[in-house]
Amino acid sequence: MRRFLAVMLLVCECAGGGTIAAAQPQGDEAIRAAIKAQVEAWNRGDVSGFMQAYEHSPETTFIGNSIGKGYEKILERYQKNYTTHEQMGTLTFNDLEVRMLPGSCGKEEFAGVTGRFHLERSQKGEAKKDDGIFSLVWRKGPQGWRIVLDHTS
Amino acid sequence: MRRFLAVMLLVCECAGGGTIAAAQPQGDEAIRAAIKAQVEAWNRGDVSGFMQAYEHSPETTFIGNSIGKGYEKILERYQKNYTTHEQMGTLTFNDLEVRMLPGSCGKEEFAGVTGRFHLERSQKGEAKKDDGIFSLVWRKGPQGWRIVLDHTS
Repeated sequence: MRRFLAVMLLVCECAGGGTIAAAQPQGDEAIRAAIKAQVEAWNRGDVSGFMQAYEHSPETTFIGNSIGKGYEKILERYQKNYTTHEQMGTLTFNDLEVRMLPGSCGKEEFAGVTGRFHLERSQKGEAKKDDGIFSLVWRKGPQGWRIVLDHTS
Repeated sequence: MRRFLAVMLLVCECAGGGTIAAAQPQGDEAIRAAIKAQVEAWNRGDVSGFMQAYEHSPETTFIGNSIGKGYEKILERYQKNYTTHEQMGTLTFNDLEVRMLPGSCGKEEFAGVTGRFHLERSQKGEAKKDDGIFSLVWRKGPQGWRIVLDHTS
């Protein structure tokens, strides 16, 4: 009986997970830190570093002028649209809002992020827009918080 | 001890919830049915009916040319941009993809939906676009599946 009870307690702890999560940074802070790192990577011309924020999955979706799916495809699109550091320029995000979307289990594993971007740059490549709006869906997986959907317009 | 074990079993069942959810329609089907009802409402000129798919919350967000927050504000924007049945026209959705986003508790409470819209109509009001792309975040709450974020471009 004692052994059975111990197994049940273990199952409950995994299913609830509240105490484990409390020791980690709050989701809001973790997402804002990941976005800050993303902007810093962009501004040093590091597209691969910028891409670290996206979930490394064929399901990760980017919507710009069209709907694109897959981490590799998103990376290729960035590399094609911004071929030099000058074309990338200096990125700033404004009006950033992070909305945590807790599940009924009490865990925070999803969040919606909205904001505006602005690019200050001396050259343009295939991507013409210097200003726009974005919405992101973030998910907390084994590697931490990652973007699973990016819609930029 | 028996009483304690019974409580633990109850906690585990609530935290896991798999068996309860299995009796209800799958999230994918429920969301597609809600979208179908939304299109039908639009095509009979019923903006309020169309809005039933959105979560009735001041946090519900709609992104078009700008970022707007709040169910009432979204409703007002639709009513202002489409003042007659002729301006609403006939709506069709294409390339619809529903991606369920299960949490680690095993519950499906979030989903990302992407697709394209097309309007066939004889009049235009303030909203000029007849074609575009959308991404939606759906959440399953006490009232069922509802849109918490709509980005249309």
